[in-house]
Amino acid sequence: MFCHIDFSMKIKAAIVGYGNVGKSVEKCIAETSDFELVGIFSRRAPNTLNSPYGAKFFEQKELFGERFQGQIDVAILSVGSAFDAQELGLKTAAHFCIVDSFDTHAKMKEYVETLNTAGKMCGTLAIVGCGWDPGLFSLMRALFASVMPDSIPQTFWGRGVSQGHSEAVRKIEGVKYATQYTVPNEEAVRLAREGRTDFATREKHTRECYVVLDYEKHFGKPESDITEIEKQAFEEEVAAQIVNLPNYFAEYDTTVHFVNEAEYLANHTRMSHAGRVVAVEKHGEVGSRAEFELALDSNPDFTAQVMVAYARANYLLARSGETGAMTVLDVPIKYLLRGGKSGIAFV
Amino acid sequence: MFCHIDFSMKIKAAIVGYGNVGKSVEKCIAETSDFELVGIFSRRAPNTLNSPYGAKFFEQKELFGERFQGQIDVAILSVGSAFDAQELGLKTAAHFCIVDSFDTHAKMKEYVETLNTAGKMCGTLAIVGCGWDPGLFSLMRALFASVMPDSIPQTFWGRGVSQGHSEAVRKIEGVKYATQYTVPNEEAVRLAREGRTDFATREKHTRECYVVLDYEKHFGKPESDITEIEKQAFEEEVAAQIVNLPNYFAEYDTTVHFVNEAEYLANHTRMSHAGRVVAVEKHGEVGSRAEFELALDSNPDFTAQVMVAYARANYLLARSGETGAMTVLDVPIKYLLRGGKSGIAFV
Repeated sequence: MFCHIDFSMKIKAAIVGYGNVGKSVEKCIAETSDFELVGIFSRRAPNTLNSPYGAKFFEQKELFGERFQGQIDVAILSVGSAFDAQELGLKTAAHFCIVDSFDTHAKMKEYVETLNTAGKMCGTLAIVGCGWDPGLFSLMRALFASVMPDSIPQTFWGRGVSQGHSEAVRKIEGVKYATQYTVPNEEAVRLAREGRTDFATREKHTRECYVVLDYEKHFGKPESDITEIEKQAFEEEVAAQIVNLPNYFAEYDTTVHFVNEAEYLANHTRMSHAGRVVAVEKHGEVGSRAEFELALDSNPDFTAQVMVAYARANYLLARSGETGAMTVLDVPIKYLLRGGKSGIAFV
Repeated sequence: MFCHIDFSMKIKAAIVGYGNVGKSVEKCIAETSDFELVGIFSRRAPNTLNSPYGAKFFEQKELFGERFQGQIDVAILSVGSAFDAQELGLKTAAHFCIVDSFDTHAKMKEYVETLNTAGKMCGTLAIVGCGWDPGLFSLMRALFASVMPDSIPQTFWGRGVSQGHSEAVRKIEGVKYATQYTVPNEEAVRLAREGRTDFATREKHTRECYVVLDYEKHFGKPESDITEIEKQAFEEEVAAQIVNLPNYFAEYDTTVHFVNEAEYLANHTRMSHAGRVVAVEKHGEVGSRAEFELALDSNPDFTAQVMVAYARANYLLARSGETGAMTVLDVPIKYLLRGGKSGIAFV
């Protein structure tokens, strides 16, 4: 019923990946008394990496060797939406229980089903999509749809930085730095609160890009030799490429701002994000509105905290014999709570 | 992992209690295709009751006779915070799986523990505290405390009608009608969003009472014979009683408005409510805020919808062999969803 677990034994965690999210998970584990860090497994050479918390680094392939078998309660995959995130998840789940923040909504079902089969075979438990969306926002959409069955929950993201969209802009020839802000349309939010649900994609969000161009590299000559007309033509060309990029920008109204490196580094390197889920139901004159909102100065820090909470749940569920794959919808909230804090205190 | 349930067989529900919440549960079940209503069990004589949905009424004691054994999948206790809610819960759980919206926070732990023992003995499952607070707000406090472990989630209620406080005012001699509005202090909400948590009770909420006095009954003479000075003295006496009522008003700043019956019936008989849970965490300059908000035109309708969703979870969990007692913290969100809607759609 309620979980009364002795947390004098710590949960042995491994971090897989040492980018922004990996570093945030490292910090979160250092500050979480019921966890201990076995090590950080990165693709980069261990001797090139430094931990502010004195963590041990290992090559990623070592994770699958004999040395760590049975030594890790849960591996926290901190590779974001890397192209091989699914493959790495499956490979890791063959050896260890895992949590991740896999975030390609469209591939989630297939990923969970494959992991479920693998986990049941190997006796491990995977809890995937443990960020804020997918993650807490998924919980809210399902909760709202359950208790307000005539509602169609609406999700708004931002204002905040989308790593995926920023990355897409950075891949364009001539772009040195780029940050993409997803901006919710406040008028659409207001209408959603009144019960409107039939928004076109373009109506709910706009996109803003802050871009630094590498003119010298593009034109193959010193910046002093490049005319304003040349620069402007290049900017127009890049802007056109951005706003027409299919899947990323073509369906949205996008504005592109070209800024210099100093301004970019001063103002556009933060990783803040925000968002809300709104559900409205009306039965004649009688209405209900439910709303969940997040405002995060650091998207990676918050994502890390969500993953660590679900890593605790993974440990508890795996110890009770669960194997296979789960999402946040499968996990009772009590399993996220620290030992000692009985669930009842919150009821 | 995900629940794939055949809902061609309907969940057989009983409603216990036919006040505001019972009537809302009846309406909700009538509109919910995976439920069917076995009957409504009331303390009042069945032949004095009418159902707009053609429901069958039975005396409450019939629920415990032979006739309904094995005929009810889940009994939905719709007795609010009646003085004997705990006793009725235990008695019903001896025969059937139950859900309720028991809402005395201070007694919840004892209630759950007793029900857990009873349920394990009798092979039934109880899910209790399935309203919005306790209920959805409990889920949010636990979730926020889990993923933002350095936060202290703050709950604000209102603006809305508190049935308990209205009832306390109605018990005062001379009061004919009374409605009490709980009002959140907007400045406290603003400060909570900035991370403040050390509020005194008086700082977070104020209370507003709209009261109709029965002057004739109190003075024992026709209203035309009662002077304005007599009326005013009586009003001052009642107002003093209200604002000093321990546990209900003494810790708050309370305003009392005396209104006539026509104004009261026109403006103060709705059962709207609202509230929010706010959690803020700060690590140096890096902060996170999470917020959950509900705005409900009908508190009983929404409470009924939450109970029906948890009644579905009860059915699914009981079928998988669970017995004893649970709160909302113990129930995976996927079990609240209607069959056919796979959990994955929300992830």
